Amino acid sequence: MAVSRVLGIDPGSRVTGLGVIEAKGQTLRHIYSGCVRTTGSELGPRLGQIYRGVAHVIEKYKPDTISIEQVFMSKNAQSALVLGQARGAALLAAIHGQKAVSEYSALEIKNAIVGTGRATKEQVQQMVKMLLGLHDAPPTDAADALGCAICHIHNQQILRRISASDSVA
Amino acid sequence: MAVSRVLGIDPGSRVTGLGVIEAKGQTLRHIYSGCVRTTGSELGPRLGQIYRGVAHVIEKYKPDTISIEQVFMSKNAQSALVLGQARGAALLAAIHGQKAVSEYSALEIKNAIVGTGRATKEQVQQMVKMLLGLHDAPPTDAADALGCAICHIHNQQILRRISASDSVA
Repeated sequence: MAVSRVLGIDPGSRVTGLGVIEAKGQTLRHIYSGCVRTTGSELGPRLGQIYRGVAHVIEKYKPDTISIEQVFMSKNAQSALVLGQARGAALLAAIHGQKAVSEYSALEIKNAIVGTGRATKEQVQQMVKMLLGLHDAPPTDAADALGCAICHIHNQQILRRISASDSVA
Repeated sequence: MAVSRVLGIDPGSRVTGLGVIEAKGQTLRHIYSGCVRTTGSELGPRLGQIYRGVAHVIEKYKPDTISIEQVFMSKNAQSALVLGQARGAALLAAIHGQKAVSEYSALEIKNAIVGTGRATKEQVQQMVKMLLGLHDAPPTDAADALGCAICHIHNQQILRRISASDSVA
């Protein structure tokens, strides 16, 4: 049975959540979760920290695919601009790692994990814990990143089922 | 007399302007100007194109410093997010090139080049042409990037004069 590894990324200018999951059929296995916490007040070096943190996880855990959260559409253009730069750094590390990149909105992720787009952060944490058979619920940023990876795996499974039923029909 | 090379960058998700200027005392010399035009609809590969374009110019023209425009504060959070990602890609290439990075607002650049923050794009183009002794006015994106580099050079000259008068006093 095919095994695939997915790195989920929840980008942020202060904290970028990262989570690696291995999927073998219906079985999901937690490989790694953590986050990059940026330090300092200057944006440039913080972007460098995000880039290196993501590149390091790609290098170490060798995911087949990367699943990145479409960031929250802030009403504030200034914060969207900062968040955009952080997401750009994470996305570039993925592109430079020559990985296929998929993007999912927070709504799609919550729907895939909890079954409703209106799920709270705590519900996402609890469902991620359950789906991966973890002892404890992961911290929110890591849980969101793991959720983003699980969302991609579900999505691929659904696409495979659709394509299988098409070829039977 | 000390010679310094400055790369100015005017970031954008579709067109990123680039301009390299050499300063020797009061004399400015145009070394290079051009732009990175991104192609395709997917943001990830476009960020890769911006990163590679900026990295290529850094590698080829070996600037001492990089001067990057603080991007326009759009009222639209969605476009600020896209622009932020493009700026993040340009900034990362500068950081990875291990160059000192300075940032200037459009207002500061217009003030430095034309003498008024309310200058039009055409006025910036004409003044950049004059200051660099060019035959033709450069296209707007390149002119903005060259303007950003000139703004940094002016700024450094003012700082040096202040520090010289301090040491005399």
